[in-house]
Amino acid sequence: MEPISSLCTPALVVDLDTVKRNALRMIERCQKMGVQLRPHMKTHKTLECADIMTAGSRRCIVVSTLAEASFYAEHGFDDILYAYCLPFDKVERCAALSEKLDLFQVLLDNPDALDQLQKRPLTNGRLWHVWLKLDCFNGRAGVLHSEPGALQLAQAIAGTKGVELTGVYAHCGNTYSCKGVEQIQAVAQETTNFVLDFMEKLRSVGITCKSSIGSTPSCSHPVKDMSKLDEVHPGNYVFYDVQQSTIGSCCLEDVAVRVLTRVIGHCPHRNQLLIDCGWSGISLDGAGKLSTGYAVIEGHPNLKLLSMTQEHGRVEPISGSLDYSKYPLGSLLTLIPYHSCATAMMHPVYHIHSGGHLLGKWTPTRG
Amino acid sequence: MEPISSLCTPALVVDLDTVKRNALRMIERCQKMGVQLRPHMKTHKTLECADIMTAGSRRCIVVSTLAEASFYAEHGFDDILYAYCLPFDKVERCAALSEKLDLFQVLLDNPDALDQLQKRPLTNGRLWHVWLKLDCFNGRAGVLHSEPGALQLAQAIAGTKGVELTGVYAHCGNTYSCKGVEQIQAVAQETTNFVLDFMEKLRSVGITCKSSIGSTPSCSHPVKDMSKLDEVHPGNYVFYDVQQSTIGSCCLEDVAVRVLTRVIGHCPHRNQLLIDCGWSGISLDGAGKLSTGYAVIEGHPNLKLLSMTQEHGRVEPISGSLDYSKYPLGSLLTLIPYHSCATAMMHPVYHIHSGGHLLGKWTPTRG
Repeated sequence: MEPISSLCTPALVVDLDTVKRNALRMIERCQKMGVQLRPHMKTHKTLECADIMTAGSRRCIVVSTLAEASFYAEHGFDDILYAYCLPFDKVERCAALSEKLDLFQVLLDNPDALDQLQKRPLTNGRLWHVWLKLDCFNGRAGVLHSEPGALQLAQAIAGTKGVELTGVYAHCGNTYSCKGVEQIQAVAQETTNFVLDFMEKLRSVGITCKSSIGSTPSCSHPVKDMSKLDEVHPGNYVFYDVQQSTIGSCCLEDVAVRVLTRVIGHCPHRNQLLIDCGWSGISLDGAGKLSTGYAVIEGHPNLKLLSMTQEHGRVEPISGSLDYSKYPLGSLLTLIPYHSCATAMMHPVYHIHSGGHLLGKWTPTRG
Repeated sequence: MEPISSLCTPALVVDLDTVKRNALRMIERCQKMGVQLRPHMKTHKTLECADIMTAGSRRCIVVSTLAEASFYAEHGFDDILYAYCLPFDKVERCAALSEKLDLFQVLLDNPDALDQLQKRPLTNGRLWHVWLKLDCFNGRAGVLHSEPGALQLAQAIAGTKGVELTGVYAHCGNTYSCKGVEQIQAVAQETTNFVLDFMEKLRSVGITCKSSIGSTPSCSHPVKDMSKLDEVHPGNYVFYDVQQSTIGSCCLEDVAVRVLTRVIGHCPHRNQLLIDCGWSGISLDGAGKLSTGYAVIEGHPNLKLLSMTQEHGRVEPISGSLDYSKYPLGSLLTLIPYHSCATAMMHPVYHIHSGGHLLGKWTPTRG
């Protein structure tokens, strides 16, 4: 088996052993809680990693684009939740997936979206399986959990012919501003409380359905009450990244992805060196967040990825002068990405390895 | 012909008429100067746009990755300059292209790279065609123009068996920090002076070769002395973008690309709306640069693309309260990208239109 150092750079490399360990830990954690794990595919967008995250079942996944939904549906996956507020331009394609799969599920947060579903009844007596998106202070999509409109919309979904209220869905993405387990668990507890309170309100008007919250931080450090939920839907945990280690979701040792890059220039007049990884290799995510710049340069804590253009990265020492003899042209450096979702998206292929020995490639879908 | 409003979003749309006009203007400008235009492919990475930029000749282009070089070589393009400091992991593939094409050219800025070429002599009496990269205060790759090492390296290249010094190459990317034509032309003049001075030094030691500078700002507003150069190598001009309009390279009317997006959420509790374009649709480039956020929202000067996650954008008014009746769910908004190179890279396909009527698709290469 070839070593990863034989790859042309920049190259995204994925440590299969770490991926498997991260996936297994989440599976076991959810089993222990008695909660169904519905892993999110958005970070990697590959069949192989989906197999690992679903322990080979190819069932019970969540995606955030219709391209992902179609890709997995075409490859034998089922019980797919398209967790994205129903896009009005894609209703017909959602209907086709609903009529084709055993269980395709959509999500909405607005009565106008429910109207769209009513206008396109499914054939063969099938129902639209609908999750209601709640905003529990995450501040993105969703009807605010405390608004009367939330309960009214749930009732409207449940009461609409041809439509089933399958569940209530919240994304506790506000865990991403946490530092440490205590803060993560405070957000997880708050989101869980809001969702459970809402489920109670639903029961009081005679409605029962599933509940789900998710985010890699909260599912990496779940609070006890999360066992009262039906599902969780984290995704990034299979790769993790520097951001997650900063939040407190994981250690740097748990991060399964790296970008390999090579030194391509010495710039002694600027006390910098150039690497062949620009924003096209690692993304611009994480600007200003780390003392080491746009990534962590593994094994070189005094180096900073200062700035990038499309195919170039500028690296400088955090303090002192660069000793160029340590970084000859052509030598390898290893970047740990700030945000693995953003970095993975830049790569048409991932190189899979075990202990630094190449095993093969994974090809993600796009869009 | 279908209107662009029939596209599922987010979608990158390219106005073919504007592309053709931008390309023709640059061709005519260079003809008038008597300078060879060597257009850069990195912004669009497609065959169709390369045909337009080369006026159908498929000759005399510049690329910044070996994947691009291989893609164009496989599709009948020739006279390709791979303008990226010779990557040591790709010498063999560069040799293969040099032996296959009529004219494949590489670039370097370090004696160690010259050693690499010497170690891999080309077959059939072919020469390595080498451009020397000069740093004329652009601050990225290149040997500093004023350093004695620059002339020494040029002499070493010219004096090496099996290698030809084809030209001297400078990228005046420091025009990107300019505001207005006067500043652009000051940088263009400075870079031109440095390169012409260097050419004079070369002649004084008996060396003649080509000279080339480039950047979209300088080539959109060339100074007279640029006519003394042999080549220019701009690229972004075929699409342009908000950044270029801010610099002063173009007007917003010259920008050929847009990202179409739809309203997918109303968030009155935050005075925001959500669109279906996140960083996966427009990139994170331009953070903090515009009063309108990550892009210009065409026809809505009071709207700001405040923040994004992978598939969501948060839009808020710059002042006042949002009138949601103006932005019903499902309605289209049009984003003018801050940096078209970064935005184009996020899209597996570009939708080509004339006057809003779809003509077809272009598929860029990756890597």
